[in-house]
Amino acid sequence: MGLIVKKFGGTSVGDLDRIRNVANRIIKTYNAGNKVVVILSAMSGATDSLIHMAEKISPTPDKRELDVLLATGEQTSAALLSITLISMGYPALSLLGHQAEVMTTCAFGDARIVGVGANRIKQLIHAGRIVIVAGFQGCDEEGNITTLGRGGSDTSAVAIAAAINADACEIYTDVDGIYTADPNVCEKARKIGRVDFDEMLEMASLGAKVLQIRSVEIAKKYNIPIHVRSSFNEEEGTMVMDVDSSIESPMVSGVTHNINEARITIKTVPDQPGIASKIFSAIADAGILVDMIIQSSPSNKQNDLSFTVPKKDFNAAMSIGKKVGKKIGATDVLGDSNIAKVSVTGVGMRSHHGVAAKMFTVLAKENINISMISTSEIRISCIIEEKYAELAVRALHTAFGLDKEE
Amino acid sequence: MGLIVKKFGGTSVGDLDRIRNVANRIIKTYNAGNKVVVILSAMSGATDSLIHMAEKISPTPDKRELDVLLATGEQTSAALLSITLISMGYPALSLLGHQAEVMTTCAFGDARIVGVGANRIKQLIHAGRIVIVAGFQGCDEEGNITTLGRGGSDTSAVAIAAAINADACEIYTDVDGIYTADPNVCEKARKIGRVDFDEMLEMASLGAKVLQIRSVEIAKKYNIPIHVRSSFNEEEGTMVMDVDSSIESPMVSGVTHNINEARITIKTVPDQPGIASKIFSAIADAGILVDMIIQSSPSNKQNDLSFTVPKKDFNAAMSIGKKVGKKIGATDVLGDSNIAKVSVTGVGMRSHHGVAAKMFTVLAKENINISMISTSEIRISCIIEEKYAELAVRALHTAFGLDKEE
Repeated sequence: MGLIVKKFGGTSVGDLDRIRNVANRIIKTYNAGNKVVVILSAMSGATDSLIHMAEKISPTPDKRELDVLLATGEQTSAALLSITLISMGYPALSLLGHQAEVMTTCAFGDARIVGVGANRIKQLIHAGRIVIVAGFQGCDEEGNITTLGRGGSDTSAVAIAAAINADACEIYTDVDGIYTADPNVCEKARKIGRVDFDEMLEMASLGAKVLQIRSVEIAKKYNIPIHVRSSFNEEEGTMVMDVDSSIESPMVSGVTHNINEARITIKTVPDQPGIASKIFSAIADAGILVDMIIQSSPSNKQNDLSFTVPKKDFNAAMSIGKKVGKKIGATDVLGDSNIAKVSVTGVGMRSHHGVAAKMFTVLAKENINISMISTSEIRISCIIEEKYAELAVRALHTAFGLDKEE
Repeated sequence: MGLIVKKFGGTSVGDLDRIRNVANRIIKTYNAGNKVVVILSAMSGATDSLIHMAEKISPTPDKRELDVLLATGEQTSAALLSITLISMGYPALSLLGHQAEVMTTCAFGDARIVGVGANRIKQLIHAGRIVIVAGFQGCDEEGNITTLGRGGSDTSAVAIAAAINADACEIYTDVDGIYTADPNVCEKARKIGRVDFDEMLEMASLGAKVLQIRSVEIAKKYNIPIHVRSSFNEEEGTMVMDVDSSIESPMVSGVTHNINEARITIKTVPDQPGIASKIFSAIADAGILVDMIIQSSPSNKQNDLSFTVPKKDFNAAMSIGKKVGKKIGATDVLGDSNIAKVSVTGVGMRSHHGVAAKMFTVLAKENINISMISTSEIRISCIIEEKYAELAVRALHTAFGLDKEE
């Protein structure tokens, strides 16, 4: 008998039959004596077709107005689910972002939640209602509609779960949990029973795509366990939680890969203070996010500087690199968009040595050359040629003992 | 250089090209130095397809949730028009009903406006912005989304015009004004240059369909002249205003007809106090609106009682009539759904005699039998057989001198 937050993604509410399926899952939990708050995404495809409509008017539609338009997606699915539940005899009621007091910054299209009032949610669940909240949306101080960016409904769900002090936050999606590797690439990938918040943060940022990374940050901050599970079956999924580190953890809990980055190398950069600042300020001013940055050891007071950017920003970043490179006297600017980032992640690394060495050995055995390396306390990432990405994932998955038992 | 409210209906914003056309009309007014507030309907067909979707879930979708769903229609068109204007370099900004402080009763699906705050609208127009308000929607005291019923955007427009003390309220629609009769029925119908609020109230309720009747009530109360005109050409339309009655008015300014009613007659009702109350209370309890009520003169302490109801409610009203008829000892209950109501309207009737007599004579000449008559100070309505409706409209139109000049 708890207070359960359930979030359903776009494919889970993709049509009226699926909405009925979602309603049945909610009813099951409600009838078991729980209080239920539901956070919904827009029906799958809805957001994309709204963006497409806006882009027919202008390639760069006004961001405030685009948010007004996009917010209709979750408003629609929330109303349809409420109508479904009420028609089945259950006391549902929908709330939009501003009605649920999801207060955000005014960064339209990518707003951050600054607080969740949730007074009305609390009143309603106290009165026995099933509350359906439109995810992905909030409002700023002035009352303007804002949206939270791709996957923002996950963040809505966790922030609301924190605000109402929920006992559990269940994220229903079209996959049945977090896997040790992408099952499309590595058929021996296993579903992970539970994963630490920190591991999940590393895995989300590396392309696991199941949870919006900001939702995991909030879940970690307020210690809200997230249960990631399928909306199409009843199986247990993956618990994302604070894993007691006294328990023996596996050294590596997952292998991820990302082929959506490109590398730029600025050759023989003068070794002077302020050079890196010049380059990365220009890149940042263009709104391009840099991931890895590697500077080779100085020789003759000169360095090579390599960094990776999203593939979609490769051309823009190259032309900025060339312009700044010329100014600072670099000998050449090289680019490569056929790269992949392969990473191993695991909280176990905190107490195990030799993970990096093992990873390099495994890749060497497969004759895969490593062109960049970056590490965190619980992750090691290598940039390799794109064509070796899947081979590398499978080899690392086997070598670190992650293959499922036959 | 005034403050102009412009309202555009669903066909005016039916696709992106038409939205651009609307944007151009707004820009023309804005560039002439006016402040502009725009009220929009949903794109044509949008509201119907949302209702259709809800009715696929339940034949009687929850009214509060249906309003949440329907409100997305105007939210979409308002955002798209703002995006269009901004992409053309104009400082537009959209507001939803609650952001424009359109406060209503909580009668979901048919809410009444109780007040319009409009503080944000005033601030924005003061700052030079073009404000685009989603019509048809408001919010109740609790912050729930409400809608104003079919044609509600007209009412939004006039109420907002009153709240901001606008110099003019222009209603753009797919017809180019108010006509002396339905041009589809009477090819000699003329566009009326101006019509009094009271005349328009009578004509709206009789089926002129151009303006939601409540918008005219508000316009009359606050003396806001409404200019009804086409969004597809630049011609002057019809001014709905307080017509100075010292000016000589034509006796009859329009002929209207309505074929969406049905008649029920309860035969030989006992002439006792409380009988009418019993019948009409039962009808009202079923949510059925009664239009005309006629009671024949008493003979032998017994009356015939006839009344009209909307055709869609005919079956329900008949079964109530039969049930109550049996209880009160009526001899029979008869129904006829093949009827039409034909009316002549004009403020000139206040000072002219003989309009009724002339109307009856015209109908008699065409061998059209009148089964019910009702009158107001400025209107005479007759119930006739449906098949004669168009003939009656044309004959009356000619007889009262309304035919356009060749």
